[in-house]
Amino acid sequence: MRQLSADDIEALAVGAWILGAGGGGSPYHGLLNMRRLYREGARISLMQPDELEDQDDVAVVSMMGAPLVILERLVDARQIARAVEAMQEYLGRRFRAVMAIEIGGGNGIQPLMAAAHLGIPVVDADAMGRAYPEAQMTSFAVANLAPAPLTSVDPRGTEAIISRAASWKWMERASRKLCTEFGSIAATCKAPRTGAEVKRWGIGGTTSQAIRLGEAVQSAHRRHEDPIEVILRTERGKRLFAGKVTAVERRTTEGFLRGRTAIQGLGADRDTAAEIEFQNEWLVVWRDRAPLASTPELICVIDNDTGEAIGTELVRYGQRVTVIAVPSPLIFLTPAGLAYVGPRAFGYDFDFHSVFDA
Amino acid sequence: MRQLSADDIEALAVGAWILGAGGGGSPYHGLLNMRRLYREGARISLMQPDELEDQDDVAVVSMMGAPLVILERLVDARQIARAVEAMQEYLGRRFRAVMAIEIGGGNGIQPLMAAAHLGIPVVDADAMGRAYPEAQMTSFAVANLAPAPLTSVDPRGTEAIISRAASWKWMERASRKLCTEFGSIAATCKAPRTGAEVKRWGIGGTTSQAIRLGEAVQSAHRRHEDPIEVILRTERGKRLFAGKVTAVERRTTEGFLRGRTAIQGLGADRDTAAEIEFQNEWLVVWRDRAPLASTPELICVIDNDTGEAIGTELVRYGQRVTVIAVPSPLIFLTPAGLAYVGPRAFGYDFDFHSVFDA
Repeated sequence: MRQLSADDIEALAVGAWILGAGGGGSPYHGLLNMRRLYREGARISLMQPDELEDQDDVAVVSMMGAPLVILERLVDARQIARAVEAMQEYLGRRFRAVMAIEIGGGNGIQPLMAAAHLGIPVVDADAMGRAYPEAQMTSFAVANLAPAPLTSVDPRGTEAIISRAASWKWMERASRKLCTEFGSIAATCKAPRTGAEVKRWGIGGTTSQAIRLGEAVQSAHRRHEDPIEVILRTERGKRLFAGKVTAVERRTTEGFLRGRTAIQGLGADRDTAAEIEFQNEWLVVWRDRAPLASTPELICVIDNDTGEAIGTELVRYGQRVTVIAVPSPLIFLTPAGLAYVGPRAFGYDFDFHSVFDA
Repeated sequence: MRQLSADDIEALAVGAWILGAGGGGSPYHGLLNMRRLYREGARISLMQPDELEDQDDVAVVSMMGAPLVILERLVDARQIARAVEAMQEYLGRRFRAVMAIEIGGGNGIQPLMAAAHLGIPVVDADAMGRAYPEAQMTSFAVANLAPAPLTSVDPRGTEAIISRAASWKWMERASRKLCTEFGSIAATCKAPRTGAEVKRWGIGGTTSQAIRLGEAVQSAHRRHEDPIEVILRTERGKRLFAGKVTAVERRTTEGFLRGRTAIQGLGADRDTAAEIEFQNEWLVVWRDRAPLASTPELICVIDNDTGEAIGTELVRYGQRVTVIAVPSPLIFLTPAGLAYVGPRAFGYDFDFHSVFDA
């Protein structure tokens, strides 16, 4: 267990945004919330999964919804804490710690906000190792752990508990409808996990990973190094191509942000014209009508100058970007994992091929 | 408290269907369920509201959704009992009795099905005195009682509790989305009511009223009397006109059945051509572009030959019908009541005028 510094949280925001693979929502508002909470004296402890007792209860949180809306409707840190409190009231017992369902984007910071209000530590783990759009796209689902209960909170005063779900997909369907009705954004506390489950099935160390990645990018800036090279080295990623954003189609529908963006290669990549399709997160890079890279590997669109990630809600015409791929946690490369998060899980008619096999 | 006979339940199905004002769902499947439960030895007790202790807990049930779907997806009697059990598990205490949110249509029989499985009595009361499409259209809402919690059950194994609602309308919005995702039908246990609340704000005696009405229609058949005249006499209703159904538009959308039907007058009414618009229930009768009758008064479309009600999901070309109006419970004629169930509550731009004032 170690106390996170204000600098750690600044780095976390940068690193989580990259690991979001375009989604998870911009971490900017969450970072502002945390700066204020730290100024007011709050301090967050990060605990390792192996510090949990097997029978400990761990709250698993996220803001659910469409990233564009998350950007428009300011998030109060108390909202995510309320989702955890609602779960505590429902269960009749208190949580030992809180963790992210996804380390990517703003959802990598949500557990810190809940923890600041609840006075409990954050577990250094998540269930995606990135961000994914749907509730069943987690290591916990692949492991066939229980999908329920879930609490969903609208800050205007409406709250729900999905107490049973016939499957992970039914949990996604029911919770997505509530989220959509709340305005395509809801604070959620997912099915509680025991310490044993987090240790066995969580993706461990991802908060630290995001902090290290963010620090590396910040350090590259100070040293005038190429931040893209630093990201690739830190995450063992692969550069796909660099270019200019030439078109963006984007629509918020049924609780998701969906669309595509076209990128025209520049420089050494000037013969490359690619399109990236997204559902909250970047899903597939298409070149010459063939998939160049796809989920579950992380597709990240990085600003050439700043080394910061560009989210699907913020990509716009004229940006100079580099598209990279980052390896997926191994659990999602198994047949069971691919059934949840491979291209076919998103409706695509092709099998996953790793860009790292070539 | 008295035990209902099998004949009482047959009469209840006929009477509740008329009081449904076109909605509440066909009582036919519910009646089949009850016939079987009675053959298996179940017996239902009907208790008067004044037999409740002030602090008793009363479960308030309904099948929520679009009547056409309710007709297509067979209802198992255990489903509504499960919604009550889920509420008992959430509250941590047991109900003294169960009552209908609406006496109209199949929802007038749902409390009997729950009661048969739970072994508790049915209260002779509801919160509408008819059927209405939305959750906030009740005497309990007009009285400003608490809208939450509510349980919603899908028979395939997904269940939710809406534990807080910012308003009655938010309860409707959130529960409607779940119901829509469940296939536009869900078994629901509405916000529990105390005995004191039921006695003060329930619409008392409506189960008995529906039984008496059904018996009157059955008796008219045996005596070869005009069933329409008997209904008008029993309910102090008003005959609007008689005619033939010449067109029906109907669509199931967002958890409701919406549409309109055109009726061409026959005989003495041959100069009348009218349209009736519906949202689950018949809302407004239009003649010459002016409202002839409207919610909250009950608009009932009755089969000329059988005296049975015709629901909005079953009305069809060629039927010979009589359109009648039946008085509304007084609470819905107050300004507060009209705000919930008057024409403007359904988006119409005119004020309510009673057909009984003329």
